Amino acid sequence: MRRILILGGGGMVGQKLAHHLAGQGLNGDRDIEVTLFDMGFPTDGAAPAKAQIAGDITDEATLSAILADRPDVIFHLASVVSGEAEQDYAKGWAVNMAPHWHMLEELRAAYEASAGAYVPRVVFTSSIAVFGGPYPDRIDDTFLSAPQTSYGAQKAVCELMLSDASRKGFVDGISIRLPTISVRPGRPNKAASGFFSNIIREPLAGKKAVLPVAETVRHWHASPRSAVGFLVHAAGLDTGLLEGRRALNMPGLSCTVADQIDALRRIAGEDAVRLIRREPDPAIDRIVAGWPRNFDPARAVALGFRAETSFDEIVRIHIEDELGQR
Amino acid sequence: MRRILILGGGGMVGQKLAHHLAGQGLNGDRDIEVTLFDMGFPTDGAAPAKAQIAGDITDEATLSAILADRPDVIFHLASVVSGEAEQDYAKGWAVNMAPHWHMLEELRAAYEASAGAYVPRVVFTSSIAVFGGPYPDRIDDTFLSAPQTSYGAQKAVCELMLSDASRKGFVDGISIRLPTISVRPGRPNKAASGFFSNIIREPLAGKKAVLPVAETVRHWHASPRSAVGFLVHAAGLDTGLLEGRRALNMPGLSCTVADQIDALRRIAGEDAVRLIRREPDPAIDRIVAGWPRNFDPARAVALGFRAETSFDEIVRIHIEDELGQR
Repeated sequence: MRRILILGGGGMVGQKLAHHLAGQGLNGDRDIEVTLFDMGFPTDGAAPAKAQIAGDITDEATLSAILADRPDVIFHLASVVSGEAEQDYAKGWAVNMAPHWHMLEELRAAYEASAGAYVPRVVFTSSIAVFGGPYPDRIDDTFLSAPQTSYGAQKAVCELMLSDASRKGFVDGISIRLPTISVRPGRPNKAASGFFSNIIREPLAGKKAVLPVAETVRHWHASPRSAVGFLVHAAGLDTGLLEGRRALNMPGLSCTVADQIDALRRIAGEDAVRLIRREPDPAIDRIVAGWPRNFDPARAVALGFRAETSFDEIVRIHIEDELGQR
Repeated sequence: MRRILILGGGGMVGQKLAHHLAGQGLNGDRDIEVTLFDMGFPTDGAAPAKAQIAGDITDEATLSAILADRPDVIFHLASVVSGEAEQDYAKGWAVNMAPHWHMLEELRAAYEASAGAYVPRVVFTSSIAVFGGPYPDRIDDTFLSAPQTSYGAQKAVCELMLSDASRKGFVDGISIRLPTISVRPGRPNKAASGFFSNIIREPLAGKKAVLPVAETVRHWHASPRSAVGFLVHAAGLDTGLLEGRRALNMPGLSCTVADQIDALRRIAGEDAVRLIRREPDPAIDRIVAGWPRNFDPARAVALGFRAETSFDEIVRIHIEDELGQR
């Protein structure tokens, strides 16, 4: 029986991961027990789990109590999103860094209490926000982390802490730097990156969507299904193959907004495309200009991580997974 | 009147910096007032300062009290050395990271209390230990931080925190990644890197020295005089020129141990060289094999940072500064 803990298990990716684990086990292992921790959980269609614990990750006693179960695998997905971390510096660091450090300290104590027998796998969701421009045409696996947001800095700090803890041997960690997840289900949100999903999801549902940037804008995408695939693959990976570099750029698809719209046209027709309204927003344009556009994720690909190879595929996954093949 | 605070002002580089400031001011500005903070201070030839405060940097109240003076320039040199941080994980993080974060939080509070008027320059001494192999022939300014020691991870984390705080505008920070400082004055120490200095300093003083690695070992050096030069140059730099990348690889000299010995021979003769005894130590060899060997510090050079261009120069500086031109 393997105990699995998902920190941030109430969020979009956490819920999809929990659904996946309930349906297919962890890399084929069905002898698992899943605990979800988050501030709250969906009231509709929540993923099955042995326990669903609502609480505040910044409360040290709460986090310690959850870790006292000694989970074998910890998926750490909990964080304040990029926009909020940027607006509220103190909250961003308090949520995105401090509990990560506290978790590692608790796991070190558990390792010592177990005389080295307890070494959990920790899969931490980092982000391409650890990067900042100027960029090469394709960001390779040796490009520096020079984040231009607090969110990116917090993710980069957590990666370094997890790598050092892993090098010392009391956890077995891996940080996966996720592309922008497209097509994000749910309602349009105010994240600066929201339009990348909105311009596909809303027209597919017969609704209007706003495009605030030029169609020439290039970005780095992977589907929610790929995100879950990355997480479970990372949980099963032989981390010896990482040779001490435990933060990995995940594969993804580099395409322009025009490419996205072409995919929508091929799959849903010109009527869908006509629902996209151009409303240039210089503020969003400026933010997006600072984001990475393309990667050469050679190490992750060699280690077996896989993402989509066309935006058509990403659109079809959204239709299959969210719209019931409609 | 500019107030200058040196955290770690009792150490070798801190004392040299304080002597420099007492003699020449800060980049020509003699209207300064220097406070030194450290666990302890040399009893012989201690650098002049307005105040010399002994205390524990991990004590938050102590650090807060020192920062309450609102120094205009903070040189942050205080840290547990590499070997100790590796032996004592908890102490390394407690000394090398936690006070750095506390300092930034105090400075943020001071910024807010001053309605944004108080924004100190913070010069943080980072290290080439933020890097880990495998390396390219020359490490350029966009190479990743993948530290293979706790010390390196702590320095890299502090860089990220300082960069984000600077981006938010409540400090004006710069992290300078120092080469190995050669020739280190004082007694031989147990640092794995000690032999790089020992094999020069000891023979120049007529004493024997042990060389534990092959003469083909290549490393990245700068003199203590250069280290002081980097610090004062960083304190005066227009940080707008950093374009958001506030951690800089300092210039240095890449040479082999054989090059070092040749320099010693040219300056002090074969008798000095004969004082070096080969005692291969596989443990030190293994540690040193993981260290960076060569850099292309193009940004720092373009920004006016300067180091030595030959090991002869480094030996002569040691003779001038430590041995009184003997």
